[in-house]
Amino acid sequence: MNEADSSPFNVRALHGAARRGALHTMHGVVETPVFMPIATAGALKTLLPSEVAGLGASIILGNTYHLLLRPGEKELQKFGGVRQFMHWDGPLLTDSGGYQVFSLSKLNKTDDDGVTFQSHIDGSTHRLTAERSMEIQSAIGSSIRMQFDDVAAGNSTRDRYSEAMERSLRWAARSKQRFDELNKGVEGDRPLLFGIVQGGTHHDLRAQSLQGLTEIGFDGYAIGGLSVGESREDTFRIVRSLAKEMPADRPRYFMGGGMPEEIVAYVSFGVDMFDCVLPTRNARHGSLFVWKGNPADAVREAFTRAMDGAADFRIAEALYDKIQITNERFMSDETPIDAWNSAETSRTFSRAYLRHLFKTGETLGLRLATLQNLGFYLRMMEELRLITANPL
Amino acid sequence: MNEADSSPFNVRALHGAARRGALHTMHGVVETPVFMPIATAGALKTLLPSEVAGLGASIILGNTYHLLLRPGEKELQKFGGVRQFMHWDGPLLTDSGGYQVFSLSKLNKTDDDGVTFQSHIDGSTHRLTAERSMEIQSAIGSSIRMQFDDVAAGNSTRDRYSEAMERSLRWAARSKQRFDELNKGVEGDRPLLFGIVQGGTHHDLRAQSLQGLTEIGFDGYAIGGLSVGESREDTFRIVRSLAKEMPADRPRYFMGGGMPEEIVAYVSFGVDMFDCVLPTRNARHGSLFVWKGNPADAVREAFTRAMDGAADFRIAEALYDKIQITNERFMSDETPIDAWNSAETSRTFSRAYLRHLFKTGETLGLRLATLQNLGFYLRMMEELRLITANPL
Repeated sequence: MNEADSSPFNVRALHGAARRGALHTMHGVVETPVFMPIATAGALKTLLPSEVAGLGASIILGNTYHLLLRPGEKELQKFGGVRQFMHWDGPLLTDSGGYQVFSLSKLNKTDDDGVTFQSHIDGSTHRLTAERSMEIQSAIGSSIRMQFDDVAAGNSTRDRYSEAMERSLRWAARSKQRFDELNKGVEGDRPLLFGIVQGGTHHDLRAQSLQGLTEIGFDGYAIGGLSVGESREDTFRIVRSLAKEMPADRPRYFMGGGMPEEIVAYVSFGVDMFDCVLPTRNARHGSLFVWKGNPADAVREAFTRAMDGAADFRIAEALYDKIQITNERFMSDETPIDAWNSAETSRTFSRAYLRHLFKTGETLGLRLATLQNLGFYLRMMEELRLITANPL
Repeated sequence: MNEADSSPFNVRALHGAARRGALHTMHGVVETPVFMPIATAGALKTLLPSEVAGLGASIILGNTYHLLLRPGEKELQKFGGVRQFMHWDGPLLTDSGGYQVFSLSKLNKTDDDGVTFQSHIDGSTHRLTAERSMEIQSAIGSSIRMQFDDVAAGNSTRDRYSEAMERSLRWAARSKQRFDELNKGVEGDRPLLFGIVQGGTHHDLRAQSLQGLTEIGFDGYAIGGLSVGESREDTFRIVRSLAKEMPADRPRYFMGGGMPEEIVAYVSFGVDMFDCVLPTRNARHGSLFVWKGNPADAVREAFTRAMDGAADFRIAEALYDKIQITNERFMSDETPIDAWNSAETSRTFSRAYLRHLFKTGETLGLRLATLQNLGFYLRMMEELRLITANPL
């Protein structure tokens, strides 16, 4: 993989448009389709890296924006990167920081060269450009890095989508150039760099973006700027058509989505990689994804519906019940949190006990809920890998 | 142990006044000296029962006051007790609820028959008496139960100490009676009931209390009403003299104390059982007990000093450094949290990383700090058991 144009990705099997693949990174192989749990600023919420690996995670995601603010570039360099800092041995992907500057920082001003913003923590001023993003991701030491991009808000005008897409293309070229400089002369495997397709819900803008990116040449391609407020139908339409046009020999990554039914649908459209805050964020609020019976059967049924073009809610109802564990109805419920979950804690502790932990504000509750939801997502991916490897 | 006057406790070795013992409960044997981590309302803060057991805990403590309010007596009965509810297989001790009614509830009014109080959670009114305390502890299903007592505030007048002590004696007799009724006809092992010596810092009141309790007859005897604001010298003086007079064939339990140096001293005075919120409470604030070198050497040195009658700070300085992990000086500290700690996480993760978790508000930080502090206390007890088993 020392050549940018030799692909780090092998498609091992096809099931319709869905792919069973393997992505080779400098820190290990990632079997796809894959879900990446989020280790925001170098921590997987309440969990140890070994616990997340135990649930079946092979790769995690770190946020460049958070890591830049804390512990900061200098500390990360000192520790040899965030993987060493947090003791995660496997591959790690970093976003470019752009999206969170836009969504989290107090003040941010985008110009053609980059973004100036104030930290949401202490108000300190920082600047991100394509070059700086590459340098910070290098200090973080991630296995997969994302180009710096300009993300238009959901429901922007076509002009704004077009502007953001074109600016992202220019930043893509600059990201690639700085990335190549940083990895010139690196011995052994180099990290991977992914480009990001922008263009909102406009197919022609998306096509133009993809065309520009493939001309530059990336190790993988991501679909950015979706799941930001547009309708689910629009997202499905764009992902389905875009996935068909994305290079077949490169990994495809849907950024920042989504619900389990979305992931099943996007896999059926040919997407390989996913991340999302939902399993951990929902866990924090006591909202749990609970298997509807045997996961193998549930995912197979959901996948079949997705292949048949079913709407999202039809896919969802084959997969899971969403339960609010704080509800009174669980007060005396002695059944396990989820007898089908991969997390041993979900099969051991009762719903009544987990409700009690939430009601008494015990942080052990967050842990059990996070294990439940991540266990659900990661098991779903395992079943999707089995289905795509063994076409019906 | 179906006879109240056959002792559940064996002294296996003596080292001066210090004892190496074994306490037989219906849920397993507790090797003493022992520290009991606190599972307030059925949860060991951020930790799973299996993790606390893995650090060497053989018995934990539940708070009757908290468990009465949530999940409540009825739910506990439904689940067969809090041990089943929280999946703790080993022995569990419950306090009587009295101390926390006094320290936590909004309004509380003590009369000769009991205490009426308002829940600190929802303001609901409850009443505790000796009989009710026994009934609730029975619903909790603890292995060791404490008599209901009246705790005088620290620095009370002699009259108040005297009143509380005498009232506690009357409640001791009533506790014993109701306890015996509840366990009459129970097949197999019965739970244990401990009496509590009161009397503040007045030796004669303490002696009178102990005399009254032994006349009633309990499975074990506790020292209550200390570590509530009196000077450390007063505590040492009372514990040292009282331990000598407590029945040699029964376990002695110092309630609600204390710092590691206190525990070492009280063990040298002949006390067998301890509990304290300090390791978990300090962890919550990033305050850590870190070994001063090899635990075996540190505890032996501390114990020798305690046997020589050293002051508490002299014992402490042989044992640990107390570090505030949020301090700037740990920002780049790549050394492990504590290379000597029993918790694997303390030997794996760096101080800089733990500081980072606290600074970013990641709950994983609470977990690592709790493992560190409980790991310290539980290893200290292990060393104390080795020392008392093998006199110098």
